[in-house]
Amino acid sequence: MGFPVVGVVGGGQLARMMAGPAIGLGLTLRVLARDAADSAALVVPDVDIGAEDDLAALRRFALACDVLTFDHEHVPTVHLRALEADGVVVRPGPDALEHAQDKLLMRRRLSALGIPGPRWAEVRAAADVAAFGAEVGWPLVLKRPRGGYDGKGVRLVDDADGAADWLAGGDPVLAEERVGFARELAVLVARSPHGQAAVWPVVETVQVDGVCREVVAPAPVAEDHALAAQQVALRIAEGLGVTGVMAVEMFDTAGGVLVNELAMRPHNSGHWTIEGSRTSQFEQHLRAVLDLPLGDTRMTAPHVAMSNVLGGSIEDMYSGYLHCLAHDPGVRIHMYGKQVRPGRKVGHVTTLGEDAGDVRERARHAAAFLRGDPDEPAE
Amino acid sequence: MGFPVVGVVGGGQLARMMAGPAIGLGLTLRVLARDAADSAALVVPDVDIGAEDDLAALRRFALACDVLTFDHEHVPTVHLRALEADGVVVRPGPDALEHAQDKLLMRRRLSALGIPGPRWAEVRAAADVAAFGAEVGWPLVLKRPRGGYDGKGVRLVDDADGAADWLAGGDPVLAEERVGFARELAVLVARSPHGQAAVWPVVETVQVDGVCREVVAPAPVAEDHALAAQQVALRIAEGLGVTGVMAVEMFDTAGGVLVNELAMRPHNSGHWTIEGSRTSQFEQHLRAVLDLPLGDTRMTAPHVAMSNVLGGSIEDMYSGYLHCLAHDPGVRIHMYGKQVRPGRKVGHVTTLGEDAGDVRERARHAAAFLRGDPDEPAE
Repeated sequence: MGFPVVGVVGGGQLARMMAGPAIGLGLTLRVLARDAADSAALVVPDVDIGAEDDLAALRRFALACDVLTFDHEHVPTVHLRALEADGVVVRPGPDALEHAQDKLLMRRRLSALGIPGPRWAEVRAAADVAAFGAEVGWPLVLKRPRGGYDGKGVRLVDDADGAADWLAGGDPVLAEERVGFARELAVLVARSPHGQAAVWPVVETVQVDGVCREVVAPAPVAEDHALAAQQVALRIAEGLGVTGVMAVEMFDTAGGVLVNELAMRPHNSGHWTIEGSRTSQFEQHLRAVLDLPLGDTRMTAPHVAMSNVLGGSIEDMYSGYLHCLAHDPGVRIHMYGKQVRPGRKVGHVTTLGEDAGDVRERARHAAAFLRGDPDEPAE
Repeated sequence: MGFPVVGVVGGGQLARMMAGPAIGLGLTLRVLARDAADSAALVVPDVDIGAEDDLAALRRFALACDVLTFDHEHVPTVHLRALEADGVVVRPGPDALEHAQDKLLMRRRLSALGIPGPRWAEVRAAADVAAFGAEVGWPLVLKRPRGGYDGKGVRLVDDADGAADWLAGGDPVLAEERVGFARELAVLVARSPHGQAAVWPVVETVQVDGVCREVVAPAPVAEDHALAAQQVALRIAEGLGVTGVMAVEMFDTAGGVLVNELAMRPHNSGHWTIEGSRTSQFEQHLRAVLDLPLGDTRMTAPHVAMSNVLGGSIEDMYSGYLHCLAHDPGVRIHMYGKQVRPGRKVGHVTTLGEDAGDVRERARHAAAFLRGDPDEPAE
């Protein structure tokens, strides 16, 4: 058998954060990156340069891998099916992954599985938008089925005119009712090819302008909502045949939890697990795609907070280390080796402790200080 | 300022285990390895091939590093002084490091600092050995001052004849009284150039045939002995001007703790800190040599055990993963990418929990299973 080679398509921070656990387990991590300066390409010896939509590059890369997995969801499904036909082990497989690539497909499938979500419609014309708005009320949430992330490809519209430019191309658009929610939640689940699944405690995610800013573990929700959220995530993982880590983003509403989005890979809402759980999402993803038994998902402290470090006014983030590490000997800094650009996710910080408010404040302070805006409010 | 480049001389598992924390902190880790197949060279992109006793190789390597540190203590002090004269930042510096290279020098210095240790003598002739044995009793412990590790270069002798072959070369030998002890302890301490120091909880180390087999944290010792042991380690770090992590191996005797050996680098007795402490010895070492503030050394669980995985009857250790990870979802496996040879340290496992006996049993089981000798007693 021997120690396997795991190939990760995509050289972003998610692939980068798999490197540490891969070293621990003695696995070889290969990365297919677009550029030698990509976040993961900087820290892994075994890098192939190529694009995720280039089948020839994917084939060449996969040849030297025992299993292929992903840093992102942008590999065309048709390429993945071709790789599978070649005999490449692709995890998650295209049948599962396409539900994280196409929001309309995802909505259809989750509805068929009876998973709770907002009311939705596939709209192709202004009249469809108007009819759906009349049914569920305005404003509506419109989403382009493919390619969106961090709030891109999503908009609120007050009437059918607001959809005109997106509909003009002829492609269908997903319309969803706008849900009133108390908070946003995320549930991280891992599932193996042989069907073992493991779920972490439910977390609250705080989004600013559609970008994740903070994650708080565990989420401050009633136990029955937390349990329901975990069960929803497990049902989706089983129903879609997911292998690897999946993040399910949800709305916590008075009537229960509603599924908002899926990501079939380690996810920003799970970065806290690196120190905050006995098994990190990155190690768990590697174990899951290799069909190894999954690790303990218990928390290592009563409360954990994660704040994203976004590009701000300081280009050299190392300059903030002296203050941050002296101010708080327990703060955990993770930088992604990316050039600072305003609003870009360039790192994150994690804090652990006994008090929910305290860990959150500590993480916010460190993240704000590193980016150079210590006085900026976090929300 | 910018993110610094840390150069590690030596490509063993200690350098390898610095890679994960370096990725997290956004540091660039360079490794000077003897061979491209060395443990650390397998996982770090930036590897120079060269020997630690080749000044030209060291100079070439150091050119691209902001600070130079070590995976082992084998770099000749004369080379380090030459590098310092070139302007290279060497941490720990040669004045400190030579105390970990030369056991006679170490004994002289610790005696001068008033640090408790066994009685010792520098012996150059059979008559010296006989006189010292007559003074402190037989058997004596003889140590070659340089080059020993894992029990090599150490022997017990019952009379002066037992030293004859080592004395024949004309080099002095260190003779120590054989101390009766309840257990062996180790204290890990980190110290920064500006003088900040941090110490981890005292651990018990279990040696088999001179090789570390198990580490138990915290050590089951009286609080006053633990505190004394920590104070001894802090005094040595300060007294010798250590920068980076230092491990102090001690005997726990009825009369108090006595210093046995020093290692000026991350150490086998500190591998448990990767999961068992809020800050691992590997991250702390990087922080210390960069003169960054040191991290929280508190434990993440009441009890932590580490068992070394030694080469045994199974060559493909990955074959044991299915059992080990299914048997114990909380076990943490670390493999070093080294070829299995009988008795060679090829990895370690760590367990965390509420009960000292339980974590020790779990770690022993996993390590024994991986090496292929599940029924072999650990001691």
